Amino acid sequence: MEFRFEQGLPVLQRTPGTLRALLLELPDDWIRATEGPGTWSPFDVVGHLIHGERTDWVPRIEHMLRHGDAVPFPPFDREAMIAASRGVALRELLDTFDLLRAQSLDRLAALGLTDSDLARRGRQPEFGVVTMGQHLAAWLAHDLSHVGQVVRVMARQYSDAVGPWRAYLSILS
Amino acid sequence: MEFRFEQGLPVLQRTPGTLRALLLELPDDWIRATEGPGTWSPFDVVGHLIHGERTDWVPRIEHMLRHGDAVPFPPFDREAMIAASRGVALRELLDTFDLLRAQSLDRLAALGLTDSDLARRGRQPEFGVVTMGQHLAAWLAHDLSHVGQVVRVMARQYSDAVGPWRAYLSILS
Repeated sequence: MEFRFEQGLPVLQRTPGTLRALLLELPDDWIRATEGPGTWSPFDVVGHLIHGERTDWVPRIEHMLRHGDAVPFPPFDREAMIAASRGVALRELLDTFDLLRAQSLDRLAALGLTDSDLARRGRQPEFGVVTMGQHLAAWLAHDLSHVGQVVRVMARQYSDAVGPWRAYLSILS
Repeated sequence: MEFRFEQGLPVLQRTPGTLRALLLELPDDWIRATEGPGTWSPFDVVGHLIHGERTDWVPRIEHMLRHGDAVPFPPFDREAMIAASRGVALRELLDTFDLLRAQSLDRLAALGLTDSDLARRGRQPEFGVVTMGQHLAAWLAHDLSHVGQVVRVMARQYSDAVGPWRAYLSILS
C-alpha cells in the first residue's frame, strides 16, 4: 500500500505508548542490553527516536514545503542521541518522546496537508529526490523498525538461555 | 543471561499492554495485513498468543512439576487460533490475552517456584529434555519474537511506499 494520512497517522501516534508499555520500569538488564559493542540498547533507541522528532521527520516536511527538491535536507546525525541521553532516566526519555511526537503530529496537522500533497518532492542528502509520501511512509516504517530492534535486542539476551528452543525462534539468529 | 524470575517476569507482564498500545483501534489495513498467503496478520498473532496461554506455557510448567521428563508435554497446535479467533473483534482478543496472561502469572506465582527450581527437567515432544529455565526463557523470547513479527508485518505493507528508503530499513527485506 501507499502512505495515506488517515491510515498512517494512527500508527505514528501509537509508537510512544508502545515503547512505554514495553519498557517503563523494566530492570536495567533489559533497558541497557545491546547486541554487542557499537550496537544500540532499548535506551539508545528511544534517544534516537527523540532526535528524529527534533531534526528529521516534520522538519524535513517543512523543508520540502519551503524548498521542494531544490535544496537537500540538512543531514541527520543518527548517533547524536548517545551524548544527549547520557545520565537521563528512561522515564524521562519516554516522556520526552511522547511529548515531541504529539507536537510533531500537531505541527503536521497544522500544515493542512492532504493525500494530494504526497507527490510533492524533496531532496534527501544521500539518495536524491524523494516524495512526501515516501518520507512519511519511511517515518512509519522507521518507527516500526526500531520497535522491532528493541524486542530483538531483548530477546537475544536469552539466545543461550532458551536451550534447544533456539532453533525455533528466528528472532534469535 | 539465564532466565531468573525477578528479571524475566516483568517482561512477560508487559506483552499484553504492548500489543494493546500498538494495535487497539488501528485501521483493519494494519490489523489484517500479512506477509502473503499462509502468513499471519497481527490479529492472528494475538490469537496465537492466547492459545499459548491456554495450552502451552504454564500448563507445561505444571506438567513438568507432575511428570518431570518422564512424560512428554502434550503437543501444541500453533495454528489452532485461526478457527478460534474467527469473527472475534481485536479488542476482545486483546482483553482475553490480557486476562489470560495475568492468570498465567498468578498461577505461576502460586506454585512458589524459585530460581533453584529452574534446573528441573521436562520433555518437549519435538526436541527432548528441556529445563524449566529454558522453557521460561523461551516463553519470554516467544513473546518478543511475536511482537517483532507484528511490527515487521506492518512495516512491510510500506515496502514499496518508502521508495529509496527501502535500502536503509532492514526490517523491509
